[in-house]
Amino acid sequence: MQDKLTLMIPGPTPVPERVLKALAKHPIGHRSPEFQQIVKRTTDLLKWLHQTNGDVLTITGSGTAAMEAAIINTLSKGDKVICGENGKFGERWVKVAKAYGLNVTTIKANWGEPLDPKKFQSILENDSEIRAVIITHSETSTGVINDLQSISKHVKSHKNAIVIADCVTSIGACNVPMDEWGVDVIASGSQKGYMMPPGLSFVAMNNSAWEATKRSDLPKFYLDLQSYKKTVDKDSNPFTPSVNLYFALEESLLMMKNEGLESIFNRHNRHMKATQEAIKSIGLSLFAKEGFGSPAITSVQPNGVDAEKIRKTVKLKFDILLAGGQDHLKGEIFRIGHLGFVNDRDIITAVAAIESTLEQLNELKKPLGTGVATATKILNQTKN
Amino acid sequence: MQDKLTLMIPGPTPVPERVLKALAKHPIGHRSPEFQQIVKRTTDLLKWLHQTNGDVLTITGSGTAAMEAAIINTLSKGDKVICGENGKFGERWVKVAKAYGLNVTTIKANWGEPLDPKKFQSILENDSEIRAVIITHSETSTGVINDLQSISKHVKSHKNAIVIADCVTSIGACNVPMDEWGVDVIASGSQKGYMMPPGLSFVAMNNSAWEATKRSDLPKFYLDLQSYKKTVDKDSNPFTPSVNLYFALEESLLMMKNEGLESIFNRHNRHMKATQEAIKSIGLSLFAKEGFGSPAITSVQPNGVDAEKIRKTVKLKFDILLAGGQDHLKGEIFRIGHLGFVNDRDIITAVAAIESTLEQLNELKKPLGTGVATATKILNQTKN
Repeated sequence: MQDKLTLMIPGPTPVPERVLKALAKHPIGHRSPEFQQIVKRTTDLLKWLHQTNGDVLTITGSGTAAMEAAIINTLSKGDKVICGENGKFGERWVKVAKAYGLNVTTIKANWGEPLDPKKFQSILENDSEIRAVIITHSETSTGVINDLQSISKHVKSHKNAIVIADCVTSIGACNVPMDEWGVDVIASGSQKGYMMPPGLSFVAMNNSAWEATKRSDLPKFYLDLQSYKKTVDKDSNPFTPSVNLYFALEESLLMMKNEGLESIFNRHNRHMKATQEAIKSIGLSLFAKEGFGSPAITSVQPNGVDAEKIRKTVKLKFDILLAGGQDHLKGEIFRIGHLGFVNDRDIITAVAAIESTLEQLNELKKPLGTGVATATKILNQTKN
Repeated sequence: MQDKLTLMIPGPTPVPERVLKALAKHPIGHRSPEFQQIVKRTTDLLKWLHQTNGDVLTITGSGTAAMEAAIINTLSKGDKVICGENGKFGERWVKVAKAYGLNVTTIKANWGEPLDPKKFQSILENDSEIRAVIITHSETSTGVINDLQSISKHVKSHKNAIVIADCVTSIGACNVPMDEWGVDVIASGSQKGYMMPPGLSFVAMNNSAWEATKRSDLPKFYLDLQSYKKTVDKDSNPFTPSVNLYFALEESLLMMKNEGLESIFNRHNRHMKATQEAIKSIGLSLFAKEGFGSPAITSVQPNGVDAEKIRKTVKLKFDILLAGGQDHLKGEIFRIGHLGFVNDRDIITAVAAIESTLEQLNELKKPLGTGVATATKILNQTKN
């Protein structure tokens, strides 16, 4: 049976019915007082989600639009920047930075391993001209979480640099206290922890980030954050925003507020642990280095078995969509998204589907039920 | 009674129930074969709508994103361009062009009057270095339609220049045969003739436009149309697109296909005429010069009466949202949107609401019912 799809990719993620219903309302005028109230309420909720007193600006566009906006508003041609690169989205930062003529130093780690904060520290200590450190917090392509807190700390000791972070798959999944950690710019997208369809993206900016905009000389218009700041201060937008996605945004943020940040982070942490342990218990390997798995996504390396074969069979038999490996990891890994609107049932089902598939492929090395038992045990042991 | 809103602004425009229902479907993976089919089908339908064999690319973003993409992909810093400017959206073209360091010559007309094609001809004949002529087809701020066909013709006699047109409120409202007229780049947005909520925008490109991209040196990433071209040729997108708005797009384009281009243009033409004549018959003035009213929007100058007072009373009494005047026209004009999903009933209702309002304000100069009678007569005389 098909057409009973469950998304377990790292975006789009599943969307609650009430969010879909909000999405389907008749649009209203984007310059009306009613819409201004929605802009005001969602902006307040976005600040709450980012744990910041700074600004959070909503852009009609994909997450990449927010990433680009982060760079082109705070930097200038020829600026020295450090980009962390340990996956596809780290690579994307480098591409954006180079497209705008920044002078990029990359700090790399193998895909599957986290970035080393000490490497950032050492370059920062020896080069006062660095203008920005640009990293991916949760690297969606590998399921690795980078140590944004430590890297931000090193940047804070530097007199010129700001931290720009892609938190696309970490915001709404784990603790990212923007102000406390001193992250200056955060980019994110709606189809992730926000439990919404894609189409909106967000750029959070603190005072240092706004300070940096003053010397930025890169050309921009649609992604000029000054226009967004000027209008959001009047509860409005510089251009016609995606009105219906705003309806959905308000609904999903209210659901998140109702659940509470700690509960949301705890839920993602439980799901991450249950998934990781279940995968290990059935004899498959985790691709991310131990201790650096992302709360949003678990990458699985089914040594010796074609990862695409597993992924496709799980889709065909159970209509659960897992993500494949990207670029050189295609066929090497598959990725289980447990980001956003995910409950315990989804985790157990995903594990059960993978076990069932491995048995069908004659590749299951442990007794059937081992993975589900492991996942269930962890879910039962940890508080919801 | 409130909360029974009818949108008669030039965007967002009313959205059919079946489009809203499509919007509210659970998202699917944007790299899935199912979604690829949607990209393929919508792209084919977009080409049909633009009457082109060129490419039509879908961007997750506002119409302004498409406008910016049109410029930054085909031009270079310092390029000489002519911008037509006879309203707010003409001004926007100038702002985008200047933000990217283009060498802009503006050809102006008073707000309410159309651009003079001969002025374009004369500059083009005397300057072989012009790289682009950039104009607004239907100027939403004034309700004036510019003569894109004639202006394009003059550009075709020039060896270096291409035509870039903002057809945001003309595509899906009146005939814009891209290939026949030789328009090289067309920008548009979903919340207009497309009968959809805002959030997607479109850039149509012909061969000359692609040729121009080869020498363009302006920096870009999210709006780099080469990435869109490369991926649309594989029925995909460079970044996570607004999946749910794609569902809606397919539904609305199918409705449009079913109605047929000629019927759509005829419907808008009838509604424009009925609105214009009704307005004149009750003693109000049309703001757009006679013969240059846009099929998408009628601007009304209620000489001596505060336009905002009329607009607000119509909203309060009838829950019909009309648009106000922008910038120096605020209070001077109001605008009746008859763009997209609009039927005869909407036109009659809008006219009736305006007549009723004028009577309440003691400003009705003609017998009550005159406007409705005029509109009805025209609607009855012309074929649907």
